[in-house]
Amino acid sequence: MVSEADFDRTMDRIFNPKHLAVVGVSSKGVGFGSGIMLALLNIGFEGEIYPVNPRGGEFQGRKLYKSVSEIPHDIDFAIVATPAETVPKVLEECLAKGAAGAEVLSAGFGELGTAEGIALEEEIRKVARRGIRVIGPNCFGVYCPASGLTLLPGPDLSRTPGSVAFLSQSGGMSIDLAHIGKWMGIGFSKVVSFGNGADLREVELLDYLSRDPETETIAMYVEGVENGPAFLQTLRRTTPEKPVIIYKGGLSEAGARAVASHTASLGGGRVIWNSLLRQANAVQVYNLPELAQACLAFSMLPRREYRGISIMGGGGALGIAGCDAAERYGIVVPPLRDSIREAIMRVLPQPGSSAKNPIDVANSHVEPQILKTALREAARDPAVDLQILVSLFYHYKVQSRVFGVPVKDIVPFKELAEAAGEVARTTEKPVLLVMPNNKQELDAMDIEEMRREARRAFLDQGVPVFDELDDALRAVSHLSRYSARRRESFEKPLDAVTALVTRSRSVLLYWGAGESRRLIYAVSE
Amino acid sequence: MVSEADFDRTMDRIFNPKHLAVVGVSSKGVGFGSGIMLALLNIGFEGEIYPVNPRGGEFQGRKLYKSVSEIPHDIDFAIVATPAETVPKVLEECLAKGAAGAEVLSAGFGELGTAEGIALEEEIRKVARRGIRVIGPNCFGVYCPASGLTLLPGPDLSRTPGSVAFLSQSGGMSIDLAHIGKWMGIGFSKVVSFGNGADLREVELLDYLSRDPETETIAMYVEGVENGPAFLQTLRRTTPEKPVIIYKGGLSEAGARAVASHTASLGGGRVIWNSLLRQANAVQVYNLPELAQACLAFSMLPRREYRGISIMGGGGALGIAGCDAAERYGIVVPPLRDSIREAIMRVLPQPGSSAKNPIDVANSHVEPQILKTALREAARDPAVDLQILVSLFYHYKVQSRVFGVPVKDIVPFKELAEAAGEVARTTEKPVLLVMPNNKQELDAMDIEEMRREARRAFLDQGVPVFDELDDALRAVSHLSRYSARRRESFEKPLDAVTALVTRSRSVLLYWGAGESRRLIYAVSE
Repeated sequence: MVSEADFDRTMDRIFNPKHLAVVGVSSKGVGFGSGIMLALLNIGFEGEIYPVNPRGGEFQGRKLYKSVSEIPHDIDFAIVATPAETVPKVLEECLAKGAAGAEVLSAGFGELGTAEGIALEEEIRKVARRGIRVIGPNCFGVYCPASGLTLLPGPDLSRTPGSVAFLSQSGGMSIDLAHIGKWMGIGFSKVVSFGNGADLREVELLDYLSRDPETETIAMYVEGVENGPAFLQTLRRTTPEKPVIIYKGGLSEAGARAVASHTASLGGGRVIWNSLLRQANAVQVYNLPELAQACLAFSMLPRREYRGISIMGGGGALGIAGCDAAERYGIVVPPLRDSIREAIMRVLPQPGSSAKNPIDVANSHVEPQILKTALREAARDPAVDLQILVSLFYHYKVQSRVFGVPVKDIVPFKELAEAAGEVARTTEKPVLLVMPNNKQELDAMDIEEMRREARRAFLDQGVPVFDELDDALRAVSHLSRYSARRRESFEKPLDAVTALVTRSRSVLLYWGAGESRRLIYAVSE
Repeated sequence: MVSEADFDRTMDRIFNPKHLAVVGVSSKGVGFGSGIMLALLNIGFEGEIYPVNPRGGEFQGRKLYKSVSEIPHDIDFAIVATPAETVPKVLEECLAKGAAGAEVLSAGFGELGTAEGIALEEEIRKVARRGIRVIGPNCFGVYCPASGLTLLPGPDLSRTPGSVAFLSQSGGMSIDLAHIGKWMGIGFSKVVSFGNGADLREVELLDYLSRDPETETIAMYVEGVENGPAFLQTLRRTTPEKPVIIYKGGLSEAGARAVASHTASLGGGRVIWNSLLRQANAVQVYNLPELAQACLAFSMLPRREYRGISIMGGGGALGIAGCDAAERYGIVVPPLRDSIREAIMRVLPQPGSSAKNPIDVANSHVEPQILKTALREAARDPAVDLQILVSLFYHYKVQSRVFGVPVKDIVPFKELAEAAGEVARTTEKPVLLVMPNNKQELDAMDIEEMRREARRAFLDQGVPVFDELDDALRAVSHLSRYSARRRESFEKPLDAVTALVTRSRSVLLYWGAGESRRLIYAVSE
């Protein structure tokens, strides 16, 4: 039995290796091994890299070692991209070189469904049990911005670390969220694509992240879990401390079939998953954009209940849409107090504006200082916990053309970002920006460029940015519900759930232990 | 009583005026009047324009007439942007000049909720009853690509006509959908922002569009209707011939409050609206992006039921996500027949691909000809009615950098668009492209540019493009459900619903007439 401290030390060597072997690097520069080498060099991995190829030779001026054993130093971690049948032997050599772990990018194991593939995966497991922790096979590996370890197709990921960890059974999902995080403003502590999960997988990785001081929010893409009860218990132990956002793929019948051929795991039904995740106060999301938006909200906003919000934008219909969406997500758009409403109306242009909440600022070109006053006033209302500002910056395109000034120079996004950031800090009520782009034709590239600069400016001010109102409201509702229920969880004994039986698609939950245990929940599809 | 033919002729003069007065054009070039003048000149309005300002003078070298009466020709239509209190008199003059109609952009009427505003709006109505049809007040007016009439902030809208008409109580929503349509590939026959709807509004406009030969799909943004029974009957008469996609704003409590201060109409509750729209086989959508996506699907795809689809993309998780979303929208992703599956597997790269449907093509760089073969084979399966191709073009960014070639030159989108288009035409089963963009940082503008060119290429081939799988599936499900239910409607006598009583927020529907009428539906909140 490995102690927590030892396990954490092992994981630390995996995420921050000082000496790294990359096995299966072709001198011709093709294949997974060369791809990951180029990615590591491009992103600026900070440790020493030892590329390996049985035929020797050179890769971009670097010596190719003929085997792991030939490497003139002990290693912390290895990236393995050799043909499936050679992998167990490579792992043996890595173990002998003192490696704490290895990631196996190669495919051709259990996911094939063949006897040979399954046997090879079992061999990996056997080596792993002797002391080298394996990530994969059939995965994209580990991304750790702090050390510069990166995913298989990840040469251009961000080196700025953040507080969100992502565990993904799918390689594609891992690289997608890492890419999205880069522009959306989600910083990562660690991203792990664990593919078939022959050794390390959801339970141990989640357990590690629950203790990892660099991780404050945990996101997961799950196709199926190996050990339901252990996963649920780990989840329940984690969520009172750190939110766990889970995208469970394959909830549908066809989806479950696709899961089987993707990572060869057993999916489990929709009802079971929804119940379990709800009971564990995990945050369940249903697609990749929703996952990313939730990560953004959880990592940038205080963990509180947000019952009431203000919505401010140019155009009556926009505010109405906001109200409708808010209600759908259980959020209130309360009428503002009379005195506050009057104070806001004093600064807004007339006619056409309204400060009843939603606050209709009459047009899309209202000055930042006016919006700042309106935001500051609205924040005074005790029924307002959070504010959403909707800016239709693309309407500046006309002015840009009339005055012959680039659109990014004419939109006052810097001033507005500073105003929003200052209001959020001084009132301690978060401000979110929603920035739709309804002009996406080829000759409006300037608007997109301005939007991207504006997004940066708002993120720098601590203001998260969403493309659509619906997205922002859904993300806030996830955060709010999690925060509200987190208090509940703290009040319950954490070890209350002692048993979970998943047999023939039914689930049983027990409170307490031994003879006094009591069935509290049963569900079957 | 005006005959249908006379009404249609009136409407035709409104949408395609040969002689147009623009009243309230400041020689200083500020305000709504000057804004709409510049927009008309910029978009290239095809008729004769007569700008009017009581002080005379010039606007961009054009003579400003001092009054409508001074215009040396009869007019077909007028755009009125003068202060609210002057509008009734201006409309009188337009009537005297033989105008078929006028749009009133000015605000300051019923939406203020003041006795003065309400009285002014009633005066407009009185003039209208004498023979000039009024659009507005408090609106953005009419956009008609064929004639070049455009919305208040619409100098850069498309001049290419299409088959989608849009009726909007909100000016903001009208300009937003018109902008979105431009790049998304939605062509418009007519867009009408009717604001407060003092005279022409939902019932008559819908009735006109139901006959308009240029309109095949009708979209509506509704905040509240004036005459529920008439609206429902017109809707029920229209949907067997033309789909009506309705975004009802203000379904929530806060939303209804916002509606009141936006266009001063009575919202009506969520339950009532959902029931009525369902019974009329209207397509109900819940936000602007969904509205736009539905317009795209309805205007580009054959009106059929789509029960089963194939999903093809690079990456297992993507296919799983597709299955999950499809189930949510009532669409099946059936396993392909063995012979078809084998034929597809023969062309796909190995290992890593799977042709069970979803078809996992193993990576994002598979050649167009291979995808074409796979699409053609999958179309042979009788359980497949439509195909969705998911392309992660942004993954080419790495190649673009390695080979030093612009990303738009390296992505084979033209070939893929031709392949998709040809398969759709020859198999008579539509192909849709889903093109997410997970790389939106500032230094990936090249990807966005490539995507926009790619979108054009696919649209030119008759292949509609969506950003996310969920969006595509939801749009297809709207089209499929409408088409399935359209047959039902045809089988029912169209005049079956003879009465609808909305009193104290309750709704009653009757079948038949006179003594034999029977209450078939009642709902109250």
